[in-house]
Amino acid sequence: MKITKLTDAISLKRQLEGGNEEQLKTVRQVLQDVRDNGDEAVRKYSEMWDGISLSDFRVSQEEIDEAVAGFDPQLKQDLVEAAENIRYYHEAQKRDGYKLPLADGSWLSQRIIPLDAVGLYVPGGSAAYPSSVLMNVIPAQVAGVERIVITSPAGRDGLLPSAVLVSASILGISEIYKVGGAQAIAALAYGTETIAPVDKITGPGNIFVALAKREVFGEVAIDMIAGPSEICVLADDSAFADEVAADLLSQAEHDPLACAVLITTSERLAKEVKEEVEKQLTGLPREEIARKSIENFGQIYIAENIDRAIEAVNSLAPEHLEVITKDAVDISEKIRHAGAVFIGRYSSEPVGDYFAGTNHVLPTNSTARFASGLNVDDFIKRTNVVYYSEKTWEQNAPKIARLARMEGLEGHARAVESRGWSKGE
Amino acid sequence: MKITKLTDAISLKRQLEGGNEEQLKTVRQVLQDVRDNGDEAVRKYSEMWDGISLSDFRVSQEEIDEAVAGFDPQLKQDLVEAAENIRYYHEAQKRDGYKLPLADGSWLSQRIIPLDAVGLYVPGGSAAYPSSVLMNVIPAQVAGVERIVITSPAGRDGLLPSAVLVSASILGISEIYKVGGAQAIAALAYGTETIAPVDKITGPGNIFVALAKREVFGEVAIDMIAGPSEICVLADDSAFADEVAADLLSQAEHDPLACAVLITTSERLAKEVKEEVEKQLTGLPREEIARKSIENFGQIYIAENIDRAIEAVNSLAPEHLEVITKDAVDISEKIRHAGAVFIGRYSSEPVGDYFAGTNHVLPTNSTARFASGLNVDDFIKRTNVVYYSEKTWEQNAPKIARLARMEGLEGHARAVESRGWSKGE
Repeated sequence: MKITKLTDAISLKRQLEGGNEEQLKTVRQVLQDVRDNGDEAVRKYSEMWDGISLSDFRVSQEEIDEAVAGFDPQLKQDLVEAAENIRYYHEAQKRDGYKLPLADGSWLSQRIIPLDAVGLYVPGGSAAYPSSVLMNVIPAQVAGVERIVITSPAGRDGLLPSAVLVSASILGISEIYKVGGAQAIAALAYGTETIAPVDKITGPGNIFVALAKREVFGEVAIDMIAGPSEICVLADDSAFADEVAADLLSQAEHDPLACAVLITTSERLAKEVKEEVEKQLTGLPREEIARKSIENFGQIYIAENIDRAIEAVNSLAPEHLEVITKDAVDISEKIRHAGAVFIGRYSSEPVGDYFAGTNHVLPTNSTARFASGLNVDDFIKRTNVVYYSEKTWEQNAPKIARLARMEGLEGHARAVESRGWSKGE
Repeated sequence: MKITKLTDAISLKRQLEGGNEEQLKTVRQVLQDVRDNGDEAVRKYSEMWDGISLSDFRVSQEEIDEAVAGFDPQLKQDLVEAAENIRYYHEAQKRDGYKLPLADGSWLSQRIIPLDAVGLYVPGGSAAYPSSVLMNVIPAQVAGVERIVITSPAGRDGLLPSAVLVSASILGISEIYKVGGAQAIAALAYGTETIAPVDKITGPGNIFVALAKREVFGEVAIDMIAGPSEICVLADDSAFADEVAADLLSQAEHDPLACAVLITTSERLAKEVKEEVEKQLTGLPREEIARKSIENFGQIYIAENIDRAIEAVNSLAPEHLEVITKDAVDISEKIRHAGAVFIGRYSSEPVGDYFAGTNHVLPTNSTARFASGLNVDDFIKRTNVVYYSEKTWEQNAPKIARLARMEGLEGHARAVESRGWSKGE
C-alpha cells in the first residue's frame, strides 16, 4: 500500500464497468424473448447459460425441508439470531402516515402503503450469500410487503445452495425460483406463466443482471446498481495496526475492484499497517483477489490533524467507515457522508455485514453523498390525499384560479371554478 | 371520448419518448464539454441554443428586487399562502434518526443527514411555472438542505420570468442562474468556475434536459424522469358531469400525451361527461393540446359495480385520482396505487397542483405502483451506525466469524477475530 501525505483532494470514485454493446444487445434480446414467450424463453436461456434443464423451476417444499434438515444447527442458530437483530434495527424505521386537519372540516393526509410484490435476486456461483437474503428480505417484510420472491441460478445439480434455502425458510419465504441471469430479471419484471411479476427488484448480480435491471427500470423499481465494496478506516495513534490491516483486507478480499483506504493522523500507524497488510495477505484464502485490490486501490493517507482527516473522509463518502480514534463517537458525529459508520475498536465492519442488525446493502462509489443503504422506506410508497370541504373550496377557489391563470392554464382555473357553476357562480 | 364497458384489464401506460441517437450524442457532447471547459462551454451553448449571450449568468439581487417590486401584490400573496400550505404539509414528513441501546453498552443508530446541495431545473419557454419552484424547493428546505440552486433558461431579453424570481424570493432562494438545457444539468452535476456542483438535481425539462439527467445519474442523484400528466376520475351517479369534464380537461390541457380517464358505475354520467368534454373543449385557450390528448388517450369506462371500478383504478395506478362518489373517504381507502388522491366534489385536482399543500411532483405512467411523489425524504439520507462494546464483541465474534466462513470470506472472519489477537485469543 502506498503511503501519501494528505495534501490535495482525494477521491475513491472508480470508472465502473458499464457493460459493452454486445452484452447490452444480448440482454435486450433476452428481455424481449421472455416478455414474448414467458416460461419457454426462461427455460431456453437457463439451459443455454446455466447448463441446467428444469421442467419446473419453482423450488419445492421438499427441497426446502431437506436443506433445513441437513443444515448445521449452530449455523442455523447464528442465522436466526442475525435475522432477529436485523429485524430489530429495521422495525424502528417503520413509519405511519399522518393526517393534518385544516379549518372547516378539510384535511390533508399522507398514506404509507407497502409495495404489493418484490423480487430478490441472489447471485449463484461459487459462494452462497445467505446474508444477502436476510438483508434484502427483512426490510421488505417490516414494510409489510405481502409477496416476496427469491430467484437464483441453480447449480449443475439443479439445486440451490442450502444456506440460501435455509435463510429463506427462517424468514418464512417459500416462493423461490431456480432462475438466474437476465432471464430472471425479465421474469420478475414482466411475469411468465409460472412467475407473476413484481413491483421492485433488488439484489446484486453479474454484469448481465445489472444491465437487465437497468433496462427494466421504470417498468418496475430497482434498488441501486451496487459497485465494488469500499472501506475507509479513520484512525489515530490509539489504533492497533494488525486490527486495522485485517479490516482493510476484509473488504479487499471481496473484489479486485474493491477499495480499502486508511486515513490516519499517525505516521507510526501508517507504517505498521502497511507492513501488517503485506503480512496478513500471505495465506489469505482469497489472497489473489485481495492483493489486486490493495495494489490497485489500497491507499494510506497521513493527515496533519484530525479535522483534515474528517474532511477527507467526507470528500470520499465511503460505503463503510470505521472510526478507531480517541473520542470516536464525537468524531463520528462530524461525518456527513458515509453509508455506514462503525465506531471504536470492537465494531469491525463484518459485525455489520452479518450480525449487528444494520443493513449491509450500502451506497458505493461516493454515492453516499446522496444515497442511503437499503431500508424499510425502499419498500413502501407514500400517497398524498386531499379532502377539501365546500367551505374551504369556496374560500380558496379564487386564489387557486388566479395561480392557474398566471401559469396560462385556464382549464385548471375552470376546473376549480366549475364547482360553482351549478349555483350560478 | 370513447365509452367502453369495463371487461378486460386496462392500462394507461404509454410508450414515452426516449430520445433518439442524435439527441443522445448531442447531450453527451455537451456534458463532456462543460466538464472539460466549464463556464466557457456553458456560455457557448447558451448562445447557440437559447440565443442569449451573457457575461454573467448569475441572477443579480437587483433583478430579483425588480421582479418583486413589479409583481402583482395579490398574486404574490397567493404564492405566499400556497408556500405556507406546502410547508405545513411537508413539515409532517420530517423525521429524526433513532438510537437503539443494546446490552453491555453497545448501540445501533440511524442518522438522518440532509443533502449538502441540490439544484432545481425550471424549464423556460412560453409559460413560467412558479408552482414548480415551490413544490421542489420547499421539501428540500424542510429536509434541511443548506444550498439550494435554481437554474432556468433566460428569455431573449436576458431575464428570467418575474413569477419564477418572485417565488424564489418568497422562499429565500437567491442563487439563481440563467442557464438552461443540457448545459445547465452538466453545470449542476460537474460544477464550473461560477456554479459549484450539487448532489441532486430535480425538476422537469425537455428531452435534452431529461437525457442529460439520465446521463449524470450516478454522479449525482436525480428525481424521477416525469412522464406526461394523468388524471383518473372514479365517480358514481352522485357526480356532476360538468365538474368531472372540467377536471378531465385540466389534465388534458397539459400535453397532447396527457391522459384523462373516467371510471364510473353510472351510464348516465358517462354519456353526460362525454358531451360536456366536447362542449367545454370549444373555446379552451389550450383547446388544440387538450383535444389531441382527449382523442388519443381520453377514455370513459363503465364498471358493473364500485368494487370492479376500484380494482380498475388500482391496475391503472394513475398519477392523480379523484374519488367523487358516495362514501368517498371509505372508497379512497381501498386505493392502493395512485400518486395523489383527491376526495369528494370540492377537491378538484388543481387544488393540489397549486395550493392545498401536497406535492404536485408525482409518479406517472403507472409507476405509482412503486414510486411516491416528491417528499422530504428525497432530500435526506440515512447513515447506519454501529457501536459494539468489548463485551458485545466478545459474545458475538464467534457467531460472526462462523457466518463469514460459511460465505467463504475468511478475511471477514479474521477481521472480527483480530480484536483478540493482542490478548492471544
